[in-house]
Amino acid sequence: MVLFRRLLGDVLRERRMQRGMTLRQVSAEARVSLGYISEIERGQKEASSELLASLCAALDASLSDVLLDVSQAVAVEEAALAPIPISQGSAARRSGDVVASAA
Amino acid sequence: MVLFRRLLGDVLRERRMQRGMTLRQVSAEARVSLGYISEIERGQKEASSELLASLCAALDASLSDVLLDVSQAVAVEEAALAPIPISQGSAARRSGDVVASAA
Repeated sequence: MVLFRRLLGDVLRERRMQRGMTLRQVSAEARVSLGYISEIERGQKEASSELLASLCAALDASLSDVLLDVSQAVAVEEAALAPIPISQGSAARRSGDVVASAA
Repeated sequence: MVLFRRLLGDVLRERRMQRGMTLRQVSAEARVSLGYISEIERGQKEASSELLASLCAALDASLSDVLLDVSQAVAVEEAALAPIPISQGSAARRSGDVVASAA
């Protein structure tokens, strides 16, 4: 199962690194405890929508851009988990063919 | 402040409607209480990453597609909240020009 909070954490950490900011700086900017931000970056805690907005602001990133990054990272994992494109699989099932397992 | 859970709720409701599913059907499919899904659709509750994955599966939607939709909906709200594109504003500030308020 592809978990939103894990990929979100990856994206937030990457954006922080790109800006050369420390956890301490983001913590001060977003007024969120350093430990909490660290847990979010490691995908161990869910970020509330308000906290996510604060983190994006602290990183000078738009929420839409962050979500776009997460969407793309999720898509990569989804593709890795499902080697056979869903459309091909569906077409094969509709036509009654036996679908060979890719596993 | 643009809140992730509100736009996520809108997208999840829209996808459910497109599939012609009732809350009851999604509830049974995702094994989540009907009331909880309703609150998520109205942006009143945060969905955990596990719940979000279950809801996407129940709606036969990929998480990446749902997040892409949310990203786009967020971008529309961000644009409405900030009439002057950030890039123009930044360029104007860098050049030392006085930036007129659009408000």
